[in-house]
Formats: sequence, C-alpha cells, structure tokens
Amino acid sequence: MAGTDRKSQASAMDAHRPVILLLRPQLGENIGMVARAMLNMGLTELRLVKPRESWPNEAAIKPSSGALPDAVHVHVFDDLNDATKDLHKLWATTARPRDMTIAVQTPHVAIEEVYNLIQKGQKIGIMFGREATGMSNDEIVFADKIITAPLNPGFSSLNLAQAVLLVAWEWRKLNDNTQDEVINYGDNVVMATKGDLQRFFDHLEMELDAVGFFKTAEKKPIMIRHLRNIFERGELSQNEVRTLRGMIAGLTRRHEIPREER
Amino acid sequence: MAGTDRKSQASAMDAHRPVILLLRPQLGENIGMVARAMLNMGLTELRLVKPRESWPNEAAIKPSSGALPDAVHVHVFDDLNDATKDLHKLWATTARPRDMTIAVQTPHVAIEEVYNLIQKGQKIGIMFGREATGMSNDEIVFADKIITAPLNPGFSSLNLAQAVLLVAWEWRKLNDNTQDEVINYGDNVVMATKGDLQRFFDHLEMELDAVGFFKTAEKKPIMIRHLRNIFERGELSQNEVRTLRGMIAGLTRRHEIPREER
Repeated sequence: MAGTDRKSQASAMDAHRPVILLLRPQLGENIGMVARAMLNMGLTELRLVKPRESWPNEAAIKPSSGALPDAVHVHVFDDLNDATKDLHKLWATTARPRDMTIAVQTPHVAIEEVYNLIQKGQKIGIMFGREATGMSNDEIVFADKIITAPLNPGFSSLNLAQAVLLVAWEWRKLNDNTQDEVINYGDNVVMATKGDLQRFFDHLEMELDAVGFFKTAEKKPIMIRHLRNIFERGELSQNEVRTLRGMIAGLTRRHEIPREER
Repeated sequence: MAGTDRKSQASAMDAHRPVILLLRPQLGENIGMVARAMLNMGLTELRLVKPRESWPNEAAIKPSSGALPDAVHVHVFDDLNDATKDLHKLWATTARPRDMTIAVQTPHVAIEEVYNLIQKGQKIGIMFGREATGMSNDEIVFADKIITAPLNPGFSSLNLAQAVLLVAWEWRKLNDNTQDEVINYGDNVVMATKGDLQRFFDHLEMELDAVGFFKTAEKKPIMIRHLRNIFERGELSQNEVRTLRGMIAGLTRRHEIPREER
C-alpha cells in the first residue's frame, strides 16, 4: 500500500514537470546518463521511442548512479504518435531544419515557456534525437517549437546526456528559490561583534604607534581607516579576532628581545 | 610564423575568459570530456593540478571529440599556489565547507560576477574537485567564493564534465546575443501575402457556403473569423496556401460525383 501511495504521488508530481523523450536511443549507457542528469534536476519521466536495444537494459543502470531503475520512470513506445498523444505541446532539441517553418528558441527562453504552460495545466514534452544523427524532419514535424542552444559555432556537438542536462538545468533554476548569494559560516562559529573588532583595532593601533608605523600625524587617520577597511570586510568570528590579536602579540614580542639576542 | 600568430591570438582571447582548474583529476576520459564541454561553450584554458596520471594522456583524446590536443590548451601544475598565482579571483565549485566562512553563490550569479570582473581586466579561475572526493578545505581556502548548483537535494552529484558544462553554459549565455526566439523558414520559402490568404479564404468560404456549412446567417461571420484565425497564425508560405486550396478543391470534388457512385 505504501508503495502504491508513493507511486501515485510520484505520478502526480510528474504531471507538473516536462517529460523527456529520447528518439531511437542507441546505447544503454547514454540512457543511464540521461536518467542521472534528469534526476539531478528533479525530472522523473523518461520516454524511449524505438530504442535500439530492449528495455530494461542492464547497461543503463550503473551510469545512472542510482536514478534507474526506480527513481526515473521509463516507458517505451513504438512510435512518436503513441509517445506524444497525451502531451499538449512538444519541443524538439535539434539544429534548424532546412525545409520547415518553425519557431527556434534558446533553451532558457523555451523552458520559461514550458514552465508557464505547465503552470496552466498543460503536459509538455521535450524530445532529443539519437546520438549520432539527430532527428529526421518527419520527427521534427511533431514539435511545436525547436530548442537550439547557442554553443560555440565551431564546436557545437553536445553528447546526449549533456544536452539533457543543459535543458533540465534551465528547468531546475525556475523551480528553485535558492538565494543568489549567501555567506556560509562554519559550524558553531560565533561572529565577532563591533566591540570585539574595536578592541582589536585599539590593540593594533597601540602597537603600531609603539613601533612608529604612522610616520606623520596627518596620515595616521587615513592609514587606520585603510587597515580597518581590510578587517571590517572580513566577516570575522570571535575566534578569528582572537587569532589576529595573538598574532600581533607574537609579532611585537620580538621588540622586547634585546637586539643582540635576535 | 602563422602558427605563432595564431597562438598569441588564442592567448589574447584566453585572457578574456575564465580558466578552468581541475584538482587532482583521476581519469583521462573525464579530462577529455571536460575539454569537450569547455570548447562547446568557448572556453579554452584548462589547468590540471596534480593529475593522477601524466600528461599528455592518450585516454583523454577520444572523449574530447576534437577539443584535445590543440583547441583547448592544457597546462599541468604541481600545486595550487603555482596554478593560481596569475589569477585575481578564484571560484571553487563544491558543497559548503563545514568550518570556513565564505560566500556561496548559485552558478548563474557567480558567472555574472566572473563576467563583470573579466570585463574589468581581471583574470579569473573556476576550480573543480576530483571525481570522487571533491576538494579539501586546504584547497577551498584558496577560493574567494564558492559555487553550489541548487540541484535536486536528494540526488545532487554531478559528474565532473557535467559540472563543468553547467558552469560553462552560464558563461556562454553571457557571451552570446542569439535572439530568444526566431521563426526558422525553410530554404527558398516564399511567404504568402495577405492577398494570397484572402483568395484562399474566399475560396474556402464559397465552398463552405455551397455545402451549407454556415447553419445560420448570424453565425457565419463568427465561424469565418475562427477559421481565419487558425490559418492567419500559421506563417503560411505561397506553396502551403496552394496545397490548402488544392486540398479544398479535392474535398469538394466528391460532391460532384453522383451519390450512387460514391
């Protein structure tokens, strides 16, 4: 029962994500790597249209790194009509066709449209051609739009799993609200307060005064400001301030040793 | 001489792109696939820090699909100090370190910063840990910031070349001005004019009138508008309009055949 519940939950979640279709895939290894790339990005529904080898395919398991046989759901179809009949819209990732009129989008723009249509309740597929030869015009004609990644024009061939990863990554970004930038603090770190820093600056200033570091009275406030700026931007912890004060204490100890004994 | 010129040109271009560093990479195959992913995205400077196997490594050539040995420039270093001494800033792609205070960015935000710094003339590196174990804190401490891709939390391990591809793709996008969406027309296509469409609609309307398709006079303008809408959105070529008119002529021919002969 638990298994059934989990399965129906998984299917309900699948409905809100694009389906990946591979046309006539050849190597099981590639199917495995595609499944891995999909699951990395949270996609779980994979359709194989006329795969060269039968499915399940043992060769796909290891390269999937655990995405197969269970986490990514694989279904096999004999033709593209069957594989797409429940889809509202279909994108094809391919180079531009020579004798067809069709919209061509960059991956990020296409996936934004996919995302919006899925929000409106549509079921969307994204299909990828086979490894060596891509897809035929008779296959492309099933698609509403084409995705072409603007790669290095002199070196634009991606392998199958890389192509899926790139498109699926664009999907993942739209489904993620990770902050653009956060400061990671070490575990159990206690940040220094402004007071901790002030005592450190006082200590530093006193010792620098003692060795005549500030050549002239006019320059002193500027130099102090420069030094303060270095340490203020450092996100220092209490431990780190202690380390710095220990370092200063250590460095100044030399001055207490008579010159001849150094 | 030509070779030298080309080389110095390549180096000049390298200066405006981030450098990719691999820490203690193990398999030549992975180095080859990294080089391929780099060149897909227009990156050409790769540094290997303490690779397990000597370089050049024959095993890297085939998986690079032509990116090695020439198009991507590989340099080997014995330590991270040497490998980074000409860099102004260094990003590390890794999971968050447990005992270090450091900024963590999403790939796209990090690469936007990388891009901006490169515009200001800085030389930037992005380093990737070795396949199995990632990077040590002693290595991470060289970095200014960390890149962590917000992947599926339950399945977040990317292979090395996939990680490089994802980051390099973000770079590529910032260096590309491909239009978001364009309509691809087949070669030698002549688009239909509004006049071609008008004659098609007149033809269609006449034939539909003849078979009594428009049940009532009030509904006729609405139905005509609906039909027109279907074909107006189609980006039709002159050939396609001819095909549609031929289709209508074909369909109406049935009506000319006496019922008993059908």
